[in-house]
Amino acid sequence: MVDKKLSHINKQGNAEMVDVSEKEITSRTAIASGRIIFPAEVFKQLQKDDFLSKKGSITQTAIIAGIQAVKKTSDLIPLCHPLRLSKINIDIQPGENSLDIECLVKCNERTGVEMEALTGVSTAALTIYDMTKALSHDLEISEIKLNKKTGGKSDFGV
Amino acid sequence: MVDKKLSHINKQGNAEMVDVSEKEITSRTAIASGRIIFPAEVFKQLQKDDFLSKKGSITQTAIIAGIQAVKKTSDLIPLCHPLRLSKINIDIQPGENSLDIECLVKCNERTGVEMEALTGVSTAALTIYDMTKALSHDLEISEIKLNKKTGGKSDFGV
Amino acid sequence: MVDKKLSHINKQGNAEMVDVSEKEITSRTAIASGRIIFPAEVFKQLQKDDFLSKKGSITQTAIIAGIQAVKKTSDLIPLCHPLRLSKINIDIQPGENSLDIECLVKCNERTGVEMEALTGVSTAALTIYDMTKALSHDLEISEIKLNKKTGGKSDFGV
Amino acid sequence: MVDKKLSHINKQGNAEMVDVSEKEITSRTAIASGRIIFPAEVFKQLQKDDFLSKKGSITQTAIIAGIQAVKKTSDLIPLCHPLRLSKINIDIQPGENSLDIECLVKCNERTGVEMEALTGVSTAALTIYDMTKALSHDLEISEIKLNKKTGGKSDFGV
Amino acid sequence: MVDKKLSHINKQGNAEMVDVSEKEITSRTAIASGRIIFPAEVFKQLQKDDFLSKKGSITQTAIIAGIQAVKKTSDLIPLCHPLRLSKINIDIQPGENSLDIECLVKCNERTGVEMEALTGVSTAALTIYDMTKALSHDLEISEIKLNKKTGGKSDFGV
Amino acid sequence: MVDKKLSHINKQGNAEMVDVSEKEITSRTAIASGRIIFPAEVFKQLQKDDFLSKKGSITQTAIIAGIQAVKKTSDLIPLCHPLRLSKINIDIQPGENSLDIECLVKCNERTGVEMEALTGVSTAALTIYDMTKALSHDLEISEIKLNKKTGGKSDFGV
Repeated sequence: MVDKKLSHINKQGNAEMVDVSEKEITSRTAIASGRIIFPAEVFKQLQKDDFLSKKGSITQTAIIAGIQAVKKTSDLIPLCHPLRLSKINIDIQPGENSLDIECLVKCNERTGVEMEALTGVSTAALTIYDMTKALSHDLEISEIKLNKKTGGKSDFGV
Repeated sequence: MVDKKLSHINKQGNAEMVDVSEKEITSRTAIASGRIIFPAEVFKQLQKDDFLSKKGSITQTAIIAGIQAVKKTSDLIPLCHPLRLSKINIDIQPGENSLDIECLVKCNERTGVEMEALTGVSTAALTIYDMTKALSHDLEISEIKLNKKTGGKSDFGV
Repeated sequence: MVDKKLSHINKQGNAEMVDVSEKEITSRTAIASGRIIFPAEVFKQLQKDDFLSKKGSITQTAIIAGIQAVKKTSDLIPLCHPLRLSKINIDIQPGENSLDIECLVKCNERTGVEMEALTGVSTAALTIYDMTKALSHDLEISEIKLNKKTGGKSDFGV
Repeated sequence: MVDKKLSHINKQGNAEMVDVSEKEITSRTAIASGRIIFPAEVFKQLQKDDFLSKKGSITQTAIIAGIQAVKKTSDLIPLCHPLRLSKINIDIQPGENSLDIECLVKCNERTGVEMEALTGVSTAALTIYDMTKALSHDLEISEIKLNKKTGGKSDFGV
Repeated sequence: MVDKKLSHINKQGNAEMVDVSEKEITSRTAIASGRIIFPAEVFKQLQKDDFLSKKGSITQTAIIAGIQAVKKTSDLIPLCHPLRLSKINIDIQPGENSLDIECLVKCNERTGVEMEALTGVSTAALTIYDMTKALSHDLEISEIKLNKKTGGKSDFGV
Repeated sequence: MVDKKLSHINKQGNAEMVDVSEKEITSRTAIASGRIIFPAEVFKQLQKDDFLSKKGSITQTAIIAGIQAVKKTSDLIPLCHPLRLSKINIDIQPGENSLDIECLVKCNERTGVEMEALTGVSTAALTIYDMTKALSHDLEISEIKLNKKTGGKSDFGV
């Protein structure tokens, strides 16, 4: 599979946005996830304060920041296509000394929304970092990955 | 330390951008790092192709995307202050089945540039993901963290 | 009607962009209006100067700012869907000690353009404020509302 | 006063960003306010639901949208100067069938932040509109005005 | 031909985004080109260094900047419609003491992508300017023009 | 001179934003110019219509678009530093079958505003193109160059 794809390599190694104009418009979904890990003591403190920081509600702010970042994906990732999106949902749940983020994106387009979902997770995690860094800089954003995508040439994670 | 900070919690739990107007303008530096991990077979293929994908040079595109994202930090992270930046550098090196990213940001401002450096790493990683996902979606962005910051009330990692 | 809608409330109270993927693409129009009110003496002065300020033509600048803001709606309002727009028109007329703004937006999409029309009016009004505030800060932006929308599940103002 | 200002009118009536390079850097503050008015029945419903809509917490989302819009002011209002901001705070309180918004902005700059505070109020109001329009389109954004500014050549509202 | 078009002039001379809602969605392509001209001595130096400057690879950075600018066209040019784009390609080749830029854009939309292609060329040229201006400010960006467009009411350059 | 500069070349050829943190804050000015050339018949028509097109006043719209683009320079040109600007002025005058654009930018910063002035000219020209292309696509944007800069290590054009 790898070999087949790389036969399409751009000869000069220059960046180009690939042509999707001949691809069919289909209903596409992507789900990505990731987490931000806290020192145990900090996580306990956050939980006690119901995930409020001096900058406000951590999870609500992170969800809104993530949703807005999903819409900026093609501005952030140079070779992403600008897309209309039909649904964005971000969920944040406490894990073991972590906040676990999941982002779902849907569209009816000629190309998929993996990068949108990953950008949503990533920006939500950065926002949580920003809102808790007054407590500690020993934070780590980790395990950002795609869980599932449907609607394209090949599905993933189903 | 944790306790002291949380005494400043905004009573209604509403988001607010903290007041830095009384803080001194100092020279500030932050260095963040992170990585994107590939399946061994994919990493070998990328190395063989000198990290060129069908969308162009992976590392060069990621470096530029990361630099541009650093400048968008206050647009992405709701409670970040807009800052003038005096230097941005992103370095990407092959690791063990990974590309390892480091981002350095400098400014002369009233607040630090941790979020800027972390946003640079994060967006560079997402750009690498976008440029290699044609080979595999089994990619993971991981270990995004702050390595060092200087110039603020308290240094970190020095 | 109110009751029916609120049965859809998101249980955790978290922000989410609602799913429009199953809605039909239709031709949609929205018209919003609003005004900025001046002290009588200032309005007389502006009229005498044909609505030119030291920053340039007030109405022309406001119209362009409003049009550009319409296109930024989904970047400004967190839960708005990014849409392609097929027409934007902003009209500004002198009223009684006021400049009265109307904004018309059209699209062929799965969701309406009320927020786009309201954002156009609002930003045009802010731009007028900016261009006349050298004369007085006793200005008021008022009566921003939707006049009409067509093409969705239910029309308004027709 | 009016006359004096208008003697500076740009002869061709063209837009121009005025020169502030010779002005002194001072600590500047602006406070603006405004409101969004609901039909009584709708307001009662919103209150009963603690200002949660199917799109999430109305006030929290509006506060974050407002803060982010403050930072976009010079991108929205053509002749505004890009500024570094040192504090942004938005407060939303229930009034009589209304939600009342106040926005405070601070900076250390050569020009004031009135437009920033007004843009924050305006965008918070638009966001509330977006989050409640499923209940009714009979909403009105009103009384957006400057309450106070300090730190410039002349204060206002003090 | 000129006469016919101008009969549509907006009576008040105000800016408006023209209505394309009744136009058909077609596959549209535009190709624009332009160049940046260097002093002979500087061009020789750049060629010797394989078009690397102290700010990095000149052509790779310019290509990415151009692609990203194409996606920002409707944000830069007030009366352009926001469009989804299906392909963007920028090619930069050495000419006689010049770097020659060509930008191809494709979409399936109700209006053409000439402005997108021209914006891509223009921003790539500005980026080259920025990366080489340490050597000389005697640079000139020139001959930015449309070479070809297809898919609209009338083709050009075919 | 050329040789000296190129000794600073980044060894890997990667893009990086150069460090200006040790440079002094000075008052800096840049003036750039350029033109857009029309077929004689089209220019005559535009002049007869006082440079109004069906999209509105050509020069007023172009001036505002240019001013707004100046403020976006660091978002468009990857290695430009984000700067506060203290003055932007764009002037457009009829030439021989051309509209001639001049852009002046001022700031008090650690680095110059050449790219800002050039971006203003370039975007004003593109906006004129957009507003007149209904008449002809035989338009050419040309001679975009720096006329003067002061306040940096070395002046230019004085």
